[in-house]
Amino acid sequence: MTLSFEVTSRSGMARRGVLTTPHGVVQTPAFMPVGTLGAVKGLGPADLESLGAEIMLSNLYHLVLRPGIDILEELGGLHRFNGWSGPILTDSGGFQVFSLSSLREVDASGVTFRSHLDGSSHRFTPHDVVRWQARMGVDIAMVLDECPPWPVSEELAAESLARTLNWARSARDTDPTGLGGLFGIVQGSTYRRLRDRAVAELVAMEFDGYAIGGVSVGEPGEDRRRAVEWSTPGLPEEKPRYLMGVGYPDDIRHAVTHGIDLFDCVLPARSGRHGLLFTREGEIRIKNARYRTDPLPLDSSCQCTTCRSTSRAFIHHLMRQDPLTAKVLCTVHNLRFYLDFMEDLRNAIAAGELTH
Amino acid sequence: MTLSFEVTSRSGMARRGVLTTPHGVVQTPAFMPVGTLGAVKGLGPADLESLGAEIMLSNLYHLVLRPGIDILEELGGLHRFNGWSGPILTDSGGFQVFSLSSLREVDASGVTFRSHLDGSSHRFTPHDVVRWQARMGVDIAMVLDECPPWPVSEELAAESLARTLNWARSARDTDPTGLGGLFGIVQGSTYRRLRDRAVAELVAMEFDGYAIGGVSVGEPGEDRRRAVEWSTPGLPEEKPRYLMGVGYPDDIRHAVTHGIDLFDCVLPARSGRHGLLFTREGEIRIKNARYRTDPLPLDSSCQCTTCRSTSRAFIHHLMRQDPLTAKVLCTVHNLRFYLDFMEDLRNAIAAGELTH
Repeated sequence: MTLSFEVTSRSGMARRGVLTTPHGVVQTPAFMPVGTLGAVKGLGPADLESLGAEIMLSNLYHLVLRPGIDILEELGGLHRFNGWSGPILTDSGGFQVFSLSSLREVDASGVTFRSHLDGSSHRFTPHDVVRWQARMGVDIAMVLDECPPWPVSEELAAESLARTLNWARSARDTDPTGLGGLFGIVQGSTYRRLRDRAVAELVAMEFDGYAIGGVSVGEPGEDRRRAVEWSTPGLPEEKPRYLMGVGYPDDIRHAVTHGIDLFDCVLPARSGRHGLLFTREGEIRIKNARYRTDPLPLDSSCQCTTCRSTSRAFIHHLMRQDPLTAKVLCTVHNLRFYLDFMEDLRNAIAAGELTH
Repeated sequence: MTLSFEVTSRSGMARRGVLTTPHGVVQTPAFMPVGTLGAVKGLGPADLESLGAEIMLSNLYHLVLRPGIDILEELGGLHRFNGWSGPILTDSGGFQVFSLSSLREVDASGVTFRSHLDGSSHRFTPHDVVRWQARMGVDIAMVLDECPPWPVSEELAAESLARTLNWARSARDTDPTGLGGLFGIVQGSTYRRLRDRAVAELVAMEFDGYAIGGVSVGEPGEDRRRAVEWSTPGLPEEKPRYLMGVGYPDDIRHAVTHGIDLFDCVLPARSGRHGLLFTREGEIRIKNARYRTDPLPLDSSCQCTTCRSTSRAFIHHLMRQDPLTAKVLCTVHNLRFYLDFMEDLRNAIAAGELTH
């Protein structure tokens, strides 16, 4: 294990830090663009680097189905495969197994399911999921977890959490050779008792970092924010913390003020592909007819290549006439907006100015 | 008119030169990436600049239909609209009117047709086509021409050429204020007598440059090459020459050896989007199963961002699982291949080593 984390400044419960991985250093709090199949849709690894991303996320579930772990290992690992030379975090596939696949059967030692692509049968166990991530050579691996839907009864959430904690133990006992580090995942749905239990047991297992999962599954924002507020006080100060799949800038800001260090979300890229742009003056829907002759950049304060060279009128035109190009240009802008947003948060923490 | 052209070295009939336009300098022989609607599909203007393109082409026909000349003028011209700060050549729409639109009616003074998008009626005249390009502020404008299909009888080709030459005269008499320069277009199908007549009459009209049109319309390569061989000896040495819509590297090389300076073709970008890649070792179809585990770059000698960072195996994977990203990465490579190919030709001319 070669992951290390250092908190360099604090503002309230928020922390600014440096996460050192086998493939480089990440300034935290950080946003990880999502490259489900190895690439952020529409961008090559060089584009992601130009944007200033320091770490990316990729999805184990999708990579297991295509191209498969054997091919990834034969080709020298995920970094060699996708050409991204910086740090990579892979999720464990837990979320996708419970949201995308069909005919799931969960048992004490793993989950069997059918691929959403071709119906083929697959089995994920806590042990295999760690080894697969190790064979891909990722910097940060996640344990296999069960991600219950929302809402769920406390009884079912408790049963699910018990399995998830057993799986975490099994993952922790797996040979980590090849990994930078392994994170545990706090589940427990909207129940404080369960979230507290998850934090206590996972911390006792001494992971290299801790994620908060089971959020961004349709719950009200209040529940999402409580999951963070309940969990972070019990997590060790010296380990990185990751809020999975969140989200909107307001939710990210809230989580950062409660001490979260890492984020991922498909939102900026997916919204960009649909013409929904994040700007410092609010969201804009570029397909709207009001932008047909608007000569301004998407965001006048943004330094991304899209904003430095083109106008809302041009993006509006492309979104209708040449959507391939529009999707790429809008993805670039939205990711840059998120990366800039994180930089602003880091600077606010360093200045001691980030409070609830 | 502010276009100027200087031949700096020769090898046989091939010439290396410098074309100076209101928006910058172009080393010739040059390839112009095609941005039909203002952008090369999948690439922003910054990407095109990074690739080393010095000039791009855009299509008047498409821009007239969407967003329309009024909007382009209101927004400050095509350069302000699409964010490309280098030289732009626009075609006249002649080719598209005769290949894309329906219900065409040609008369002595222009052509009336229905849009391929929505059936709306439009009329192009030689005068309007020049003024539209001037209002967009393009560096090089093309005269309206009639592009007969292949094959066509000599009688019909002669009638069509007579109209095209009259239109060229009408274009030449139009106020060029706002343009860098205006090129005439040599038509005449596969008939030497007609091509010779076109060259003689157009040269007498003293255009700023001369294009060879009516090729890449399905004719055998032999006819395409003869159109070049017949025309260039009659064109003035001191003016730039442009072979429209061509094409494959072999055809470009042949045309360069006969003194052509400018090229455009959708081939590299369109082929890239379909996974057909040009490499120094020949064409490869990246969807082919043989590339599933191929760790080599698309082209080991290529310095494009795709080849420097990713493998054939990754592009193969993306072409199947994430085609948006694959299309962008393959377009980048193919355009870089063409731009490198042109640079090699320029260097061969400078070294006096480019012969038939």
